[in-house]
Order: sequence, then structure tokens, then C-alpha cells
Amino acid sequence: MKMNNAAITRPTLLVDREKCIQNILWMKAKAEKSGCLFRPHFKTHQSATVGKWFASCGVHSITVSSLGMAGYFAANGWNNITVAFPLNIREMDTVRELASKISLQVLVSSMDTMQNLSALVHAPLGFFIEVDNGYCRSGIEMKNTQAICRLLEMAEQNPHLRFRGFLSHFGDTYDAASPEQVRAIFNAGKLNMIALKEKFLPDFPDIIISAGDTPGCSLVDDFSGLDEIRPGNFVYYDLVQYRLGSCRSGQIAAVVVCPVVEVHEERSQLIIYGGAVHFSKDTVLIEDRKVFGCGIRMQENALEKPDLSVKLVKVSQEHGIVEYPAGMRGNFKPGDLLYLIPAHSCLAANLLNARTFNGEELNLFRA
Amino acid sequence: MKMNNAAITRPTLLVDREKCIQNILWMKAKAEKSGCLFRPHFKTHQSATVGKWFASCGVHSITVSSLGMAGYFAANGWNNITVAFPLNIREMDTVRELASKISLQVLVSSMDTMQNLSALVHAPLGFFIEVDNGYCRSGIEMKNTQAICRLLEMAEQNPHLRFRGFLSHFGDTYDAASPEQVRAIFNAGKLNMIALKEKFLPDFPDIIISAGDTPGCSLVDDFSGLDEIRPGNFVYYDLVQYRLGSCRSGQIAAVVVCPVVEVHEERSQLIIYGGAVHFSKDTVLIEDRKVFGCGIRMQENALEKPDLSVKLVKVSQEHGIVEYPAGMRGNFKPGDLLYLIPAHSCLAANLLNARTFNGEELNLFRA
Repeated sequence: MKMNNAAITRPTLLVDREKCIQNILWMKAKAEKSGCLFRPHFKTHQSATVGKWFASCGVHSITVSSLGMAGYFAANGWNNITVAFPLNIREMDTVRELASKISLQVLVSSMDTMQNLSALVHAPLGFFIEVDNGYCRSGIEMKNTQAICRLLEMAEQNPHLRFRGFLSHFGDTYDAASPEQVRAIFNAGKLNMIALKEKFLPDFPDIIISAGDTPGCSLVDDFSGLDEIRPGNFVYYDLVQYRLGSCRSGQIAAVVVCPVVEVHEERSQLIIYGGAVHFSKDTVLIEDRKVFGCGIRMQENALEKPDLSVKLVKVSQEHGIVEYPAGMRGNFKPGDLLYLIPAHSCLAANLLNARTFNGEELNLFRA
Repeated sequence: MKMNNAAITRPTLLVDREKCIQNILWMKAKAEKSGCLFRPHFKTHQSATVGKWFASCGVHSITVSSLGMAGYFAANGWNNITVAFPLNIREMDTVRELASKISLQVLVSSMDTMQNLSALVHAPLGFFIEVDNGYCRSGIEMKNTQAICRLLEMAEQNPHLRFRGFLSHFGDTYDAASPEQVRAIFNAGKLNMIALKEKFLPDFPDIIISAGDTPGCSLVDDFSGLDEIRPGNFVYYDLVQYRLGSCRSGQIAAVVVCPVVEVHEERSQLIIYGGAVHFSKDTVLIEDRKVFGCGIRMQENALEKPDLSVKLVKVSQEHGIVEYPAGMRGNFKPGDLLYLIPAHSCLAANLLNARTFNGEELNLFRA
């Protein structure tokens, strides 16, 4: 089947369905081989259409990053959802409504929040305690078992609250200098979680431990010891992951297609319709330049190799400035489509309309 | 009237209608005193509701940054719109449809684009030639009169194409080190445009010159010589403008309200529900730290002074990490609302649902 690019008039996320499914099946097989539940994070694609691809691969449990997103996927048939974000007690009405319809798990890591939850929940609700393995974002410090015990004591006051286990995000893998370092961070975090689980297992024999950033889950082969992994970005991958070594170029499954609107040959630059409201503003260092994305060659119906020499070096609200090597002069004209791997596909996907190579529009959650 | 903050459950842009109207009237009066048409840029707010406030102040002509946005405002009663973005020839159908309904002006700065336009336009359409005063984004270099003449010759082949004049964006004011430097950049650009206009006036007696970034229009009192100004950000202002000296704290008219979800007193940090999908990822340097936003005090129904000691120092997709001074320990708990001035209000407004202090939901364009 040939792409009908003529239909693309504005910045659009173009998604390779077959590569997504390969990525899903590959990650799912690794999880199963390690005896882990595969609970992919849907914040990357935020799409019921992509969700169906996961379902067709045998995935039944998912992770999301907001209650709004949980509601969207619940309405699209998903009935086992973990909201991997510290519970926002201002949304307790939504929590209660969702918990009455599906199997919902939330994260709790502070006494104030547990107190609220305990007072307001009147139907079964699962909760994880989020623990922090050194990333210093959300969660209770991994070693602070005293705080964990206090939380669990408070939770016992409401029989509807069901302790599911411990959850962590090893986000520091994104700052690793090499694939070896990614593996080291992931495996050290895993051992910490296993130790934590063992401490609480006598009192809570059913608890599980859940982890799983995309760099770690991509670069580590054996997750044994963990009960669940939650990678999200791997379905599309992006330039951050490619530079980190988390993926091969052949696994990149989503690109941003942008119309060229001006060609400045004298300074080897293109102005594209594609700015901060399409790419967001995450960057990657490529050859000592901070770039928002880089080129990728396109052949008929397939993405070929990334072209790191074509760099999206600046974005304003709607404009992007792309630099290309002098040797490519004469290759571009206004009206052409430029294919770019975004620095961070999750943020680009949050901003763009999306379609597959076959022209199918993706159904998307919009907050 | 008292704010009903209890209704805010998720990150929300809170807009002070009265301050917006003050900002609009102030800028409009400056334009009129200078004999300029005031054609505000609506890309900042992207809201039909805010558009009505402009209309109530006597504004009738506007600027937008995309054809989609032009269509949205045309549907909301605006009938004189300039799309201040290089014409994207992939959207010629939209251009022709809009031009048949309203007075539409587009930007052209390359021969390929003019060729397409000339071949495809069958009804009156105004065009500006965008010129570049050294910002090095889009447009023809200001001094390249040869390229300008070639474009105009091509345009003459289609009698529907009406040359309106020259338009420029002095975007380098954003990189200025001081208000004096902003004024110097703006005034130098203005003189260049006046000189350019004088060259073409004998052949095109009706042409105008249009400029107007928010730093320049805020800090310069007299625009005389320009025919039109197009500032956008000034309606809300933000932390970038405040640091640049473009606005006083009392002019900041939009803040992002975020629920606090975790308090980490031991490291003087809050985790807020408010990340890259709410603030985007623009930063400002405050006390040698790159921040995505800073606190602002709130009293009843009014924004008070910015509090630069409360800093949004990190954002991931939905999480924000806020640092506060040790002296504020004990001031925060989960469920509180934190008021933050975003680094860049245009990008935050593009991402967030918005409401006024009185609880009115803003009608918003969503691409």
C-alpha cells in the first residue's frame, strides 16, 4: 500500500502500525519470559486506536498518567488501569466514579493523601505505594520503611483500600551516559525493590513490585524478580531513546511530518511549519548541538535510517528552523514534506493529530 | 466577587479579565497616539472569549499564526485577519475558502510560493512580503530589494493578488540584555522598514509597514512611522517578559493553577500536578537557575507580587518539581493550589483549559 502524503497539509504524527506491533510483541515476550505482567504505559500514545493494537497482542492491563486519561481508556473498553501519578485528592469524585466501574489502582505516598483517601472511599480501590529509588521526583524514599508502615496503618482503617504493592519509576536511566549505565541503574533499582517487597511479604502475601522505564526495559533482557513492568515510550521510541542506545533505528515507529514553507539556501536552512506547539521543547544533544528533532529518510511506505545531519535547531510557536548540510542544497522546495524524529515522542504525540501510514486517523485523548 | 477555587481540580490557566482589558486599552492607546493600526496577535490566547474583550475595546483587525486559527476566529465573527506565518501552499484550499468569506492577508517571501499562489487564487487576496531584520527566522533579508522586486513582478500576473506592504517580526528583542537594548532593536528595525517602504511607495502608494513584538511594543512609547503593530503576548504577559522588563508585575494577567500532590519538606520541594503537557518546556533564568515558572501570591480575587523564590525547576510529562525557601516549610499540603507564572504564557495557554477569576470557561481554539 502506498502512502497518500498529498493528504497531509499540517504538522502530523505519522505512525507505523507494523513497527508499533513489533515493538509491543517484543516487549511483551521479554516480560513473559521474565515472569512479569506487562502493563504498558499509555501516556505516550494516548490513543484508543493504538490501544486496540495492544489488545490485539494480548495486553489487558495498562498504565496511564492522569485520571482523565484513565476515563478515556475506560470508556474505550479497558478495565484494569493503574494511574501512575501521585493521587490528586482534588479529583476524588473521578476516582470514586472510575473505581465503581473498573479495576483501578492509584498511587499514594503521603499521609495527608492517605487520610483523604481513607475518609472518602466507599468501594474497593487498589493502591500502590510509590517509592523513590534516587530519581528524586515523587514517592517515599525507598529505605524509609517507617513512613511506609505509617501509611499502611492508616490504610487499614478503611477496608475498601487494598494494598497492591510498591511501584517505582527509575527515571534516572534517562540521564545515563551509556547502555551499561542504564542497565546498572535498572538492576540496582530492581534489587532494592525486591528487598523492600521481602520485608512486607509476611504481612502482605499478595503484594507485587512494579517498575519499568523505557530505557531500562529496552536494554535489560531479564526482569526476573519484578512482578510487573510499565514502559510506555517503547511503542514509538524517539531521538532521546535512539541517542541513549535504547532502540535501533528500525524500531522508531513515529515521526513528525512537517510542510516546508521557506528554503534559505544561502544559510542552509529550511523554515518548516512545525514549532513548539507541535514538538514541545525537549532537546537532545547531537554533535554538540541541542536539537528538537532530526531528519529521517522515507522510502515509499517505510521509514529508513535517521539522518542526524538534518537538525531541527530552533522552534518558536509555529515555526521550526532546520539546518541541513551544504551538500543537500537544491533538495528542498516550499510545499515539500519533511520527516523528523522528535526529541521526545510522548510530548509530540500529546500535541499532534496522528495517522498511520495507511491514512487511518488515530483516535486520541485530549485533556 | 470571590473566586471559587474549589472547582479547580486540574492544571488550569486562570485569567484576570480586568487586567487583560487594561493591557488591551493601554496598548491600543499607544498605537493610536502613534497613528498606527492596532492588529493584535491572537496566537497567545487562541480564545473567542478573550477575542470578545478585544472587540469590546474597539479592536476589529487581528493577527493569527495558522490558517486553522484564522478559520476559528472567522467563525467567531472576525472578518479582517492576517496570518503571520509563511504561506503553506499545502493549505491553499483553506486559503481560498477563507478569502471568499473575510478580508484575509497572507505572507509570501519565496518565488515558489508566489508561483503557486499566483496560479491558484481566483478571488481577491491580500499579501504582505515578510522581511527579515536580522532575526534570521522567516522572510526575505530586509536589504534584498532585488528578490522583493522579483516577487512583485510574479504577483502582478494575477490581478486578484493585492500587495499590502511589508511585515516583520523583530524577534531578537527577546534576546536583549536590557530594556534599552529592546528599544534600540525595535527602533532600528522600524527605521529599516520605513526606508524600505519609501523605496516602493512610488509604485505602490497604498502599502503599509507592520511590525510589533511584545517586548518592543511594551517598552517603546512612540511607534510613529509604522502603520501597524501586532503584539500578542502583552494581553497575558509572563515570566519571560517580566524578567526582560517588558511588564510590571501588576500587568501579569494569566497564571497556571496547579494542585500540590506531594510535599517533601526534607528537600524543600513540592510535587505538583503540572508538567510539560501543561507548561510546555520554555525556561527563564532566575538567580542562575533555569525555571519553567515561578510562584505568585494570590489575595482573594487578585494576583499580587511574583515570588521568585518559589521556582518550578523541573517538569516531566505531568509532574512538576517546585523548590521553595526553607522558611516556607509547613506552608504547603497535598490538595493545595499553587499559583505559578509560566515562563511562556503563549505555550501554556496552548495546552491548558482556561477560566476567568469569575469562573467563566474560556472558549478555545484547538488545532
